[in-house]
Amino acid sequence: MIRFYNGKVLTMDSEIRPQDTEVWVDADKISFVGKPTAEQLSQTTFDRQIDLHGDVLMPGLKNAHTHSPMTFLRSFADDMPLQDWLTKQIFPMEAKLTEQRVYELTKLAILEYLTSGCTAAFDMYFFRDGYVKACVEAGFRSVMCGAVTGDESSLEKLEEDFAKYNSTGSPLISFMLGLHAEYTCSKELIGGVGQLAKKYKAPVAMHSSETEREVAECIGRYDMTPTQLFDSLGVYDFGGAAFHCVHLTDEDMQILKMRNVSAVHCPASNLKLASGIAEIVKMQKYGINIALGTDGPASNNALDMFREMYLMTALQKGVNKDAAACSPQSVLKAATVGGARAMQLSDCDVIAVGKQADLVVLDLNKPNMQPVNNIVSNIVYSADKTNVRLTMCAGKVLYEDGKFNVPWDTDEVYATANEIITEMKSE
Amino acid sequence: MIRFYNGKVLTMDSEIRPQDTEVWVDADKISFVGKPTAEQLSQTTFDRQIDLHGDVLMPGLKNAHTHSPMTFLRSFADDMPLQDWLTKQIFPMEAKLTEQRVYELTKLAILEYLTSGCTAAFDMYFFRDGYVKACVEAGFRSVMCGAVTGDESSLEKLEEDFAKYNSTGSPLISFMLGLHAEYTCSKELIGGVGQLAKKYKAPVAMHSSETEREVAECIGRYDMTPTQLFDSLGVYDFGGAAFHCVHLTDEDMQILKMRNVSAVHCPASNLKLASGIAEIVKMQKYGINIALGTDGPASNNALDMFREMYLMTALQKGVNKDAAACSPQSVLKAATVGGARAMQLSDCDVIAVGKQADLVVLDLNKPNMQPVNNIVSNIVYSADKTNVRLTMCAGKVLYEDGKFNVPWDTDEVYATANEIITEMKSE
Repeated sequence: MIRFYNGKVLTMDSEIRPQDTEVWVDADKISFVGKPTAEQLSQTTFDRQIDLHGDVLMPGLKNAHTHSPMTFLRSFADDMPLQDWLTKQIFPMEAKLTEQRVYELTKLAILEYLTSGCTAAFDMYFFRDGYVKACVEAGFRSVMCGAVTGDESSLEKLEEDFAKYNSTGSPLISFMLGLHAEYTCSKELIGGVGQLAKKYKAPVAMHSSETEREVAECIGRYDMTPTQLFDSLGVYDFGGAAFHCVHLTDEDMQILKMRNVSAVHCPASNLKLASGIAEIVKMQKYGINIALGTDGPASNNALDMFREMYLMTALQKGVNKDAAACSPQSVLKAATVGGARAMQLSDCDVIAVGKQADLVVLDLNKPNMQPVNNIVSNIVYSADKTNVRLTMCAGKVLYEDGKFNVPWDTDEVYATANEIITEMKSE
Repeated sequence: MIRFYNGKVLTMDSEIRPQDTEVWVDADKISFVGKPTAEQLSQTTFDRQIDLHGDVLMPGLKNAHTHSPMTFLRSFADDMPLQDWLTKQIFPMEAKLTEQRVYELTKLAILEYLTSGCTAAFDMYFFRDGYVKACVEAGFRSVMCGAVTGDESSLEKLEEDFAKYNSTGSPLISFMLGLHAEYTCSKELIGGVGQLAKKYKAPVAMHSSETEREVAECIGRYDMTPTQLFDSLGVYDFGGAAFHCVHLTDEDMQILKMRNVSAVHCPASNLKLASGIAEIVKMQKYGINIALGTDGPASNNALDMFREMYLMTALQKGVNKDAAACSPQSVLKAATVGGARAMQLSDCDVIAVGKQADLVVLDLNKPNMQPVNNIVSNIVYSADKTNVRLTMCAGKVLYEDGKFNVPWDTDEVYATANEIITEMKSE
């Protein structure tokens, strides 16, 4: 049992709790939230008691769209538009990946997630055994999704992976049906994914409406936007998650709301690839669940949820010419509760008894967080990775005071990542 | 003498130097840059030898527009447009400031600058003795500028301050002529500042063209943009620095270039107050010197130059729909050399013999900086404050490995800032 005490508890399902609120963690779950009686305290044996010293305890940040193993392509091909970047730089390098390389490169991403208070990633990639191995070794939570492309032959693999990665034996790992994007799939393939959604009554994840060109070409092919196409083929019948959603029509937004599809906002990647700025304020008005993601390290290039939070609100204020747009509360909700919902992690959203202990301690005793006029504003407008004091996944402290508690030597992880990209360049 | 060795030296006036390049610091200046001979090494006595372990040594970041003492208003009044925010929230609280409060609140800002690798601030504020006291105690470099407002009576004070703060006895402190903004000055006052510029052959700093409303009202009053008005009144005769420059015409840009006026870009503050996004790409084409600033903590709310660097390039890519816009090289230049130029700190711009030793060490041995495909891209697209290993001003290490080397107790600084805002709310 681990006891967090003497801090501010941001449960994300109610007001900020006063400083005498404690949170106790038993194995992987939150077992107590509140002010304990003297009797409760005296009758409980704690393995560890963590004095928060007035710091903030809150649910871990959820990175709801990423391609973790792409760490090797960080700063490899910057300053290019999406289509060129993908076809000329990214796809050829990705063709050289192996299971072992994905395992090694995923380690680097997990280390970075932990430094930014991120406790779960929603990951679309391949060589999944290597990826899962790294997550399980670290104790890091991941929801993978399918990324079928091409023709119908890849459906079988999707169904296999759906079964396989939802029964790995690790409670940290789950898998959602998914396709890469409209522009990399045949209509038949998309329809096939829709059939699987029906068969399993399962949500589906995919890239959608990331660029103007993607939407225009889809309309050219089918006289429908990607969102309309997916909906027409049954892909959204049991909800899902649409990554990016930069270029949506009003009708698209209505579909997302009606079908319970989360919009995963990736502001840094969308800016850097010059894809545009998603209309978050409008989506909020439609009541769409919004989550926040970094996208992969090749297009961001950091895996830093604090940067995404700032961008989410600042961009909406800027483009809507409304300084009140996109409140910090709504941003923090997207980065925690909204992400958990998009990832179908209903037990990782808030701090409450019975929920998974995926938690973060944010250090307020740093100059950027003082004075404390408003904690949520401080987190969204001022916090950065230097404020991450502790990151806990499923009840286990994986990062604390700048040190990692993972079974890897960090210098070796860095060296291996450099070796891999050097080798790949010469292959 | 301090020796930096075994690192990558980003001098900012040439290519990245190979790892056997060393930088030596004698008192407040850089005394050697290059590969020393065995003889040079054996004949030199070092007070300290800093093994960079492959990390990056580069010129300190220059925060070219800020209002440091406004730390007390962080998260105090968010989500409001500029004019309301200023007149209803900021000005009434500022009226309660004192010399002593400014001294205390400046300390908090300096601590934050040091954590973000910032070695100098271009500061517009009042109660300057309190401000200077904090900077000199810390050993932090500052260029202040005048902020005259109202009528001509404030000109005398500006001239006094110009003399006084350019002869404090501390080489860390200097003062530039300046006015607050067109919208807070009479035309006669602006003309008076122009006269002082002529008298002292001195550059002038001011807020300019931050909002559409400011520009429209100025045109309504004078049939000129703020830039045209300043130019017509001689304010720009000896160059200067214009803060914000969000809404410039082509003619305005020609004036800035011709008059050698630096444009100080504050992307976070401009977004958060919904003022807009400056046309940096266009300004770069005109050859205007561009610097980068955070603006004050009431409108940003962090004082984090890494966030500004990312915003500068990402926003230009986004609004210009061009992923190649605003190269990371141009961003890093704005944050270092461009800032030094805007602040008239000609000896703090690059790493070269005889320059001031205002230096930063960036830690590459963190997950967000690996692999090292491109150092400049890594810094601009991926770095954050966790990468700041050491910050040195004028040859003195002020921050290293998360510890401050300043004559203040940081907990006291935080507590005092909270006491001040609490007192002010009740006054």
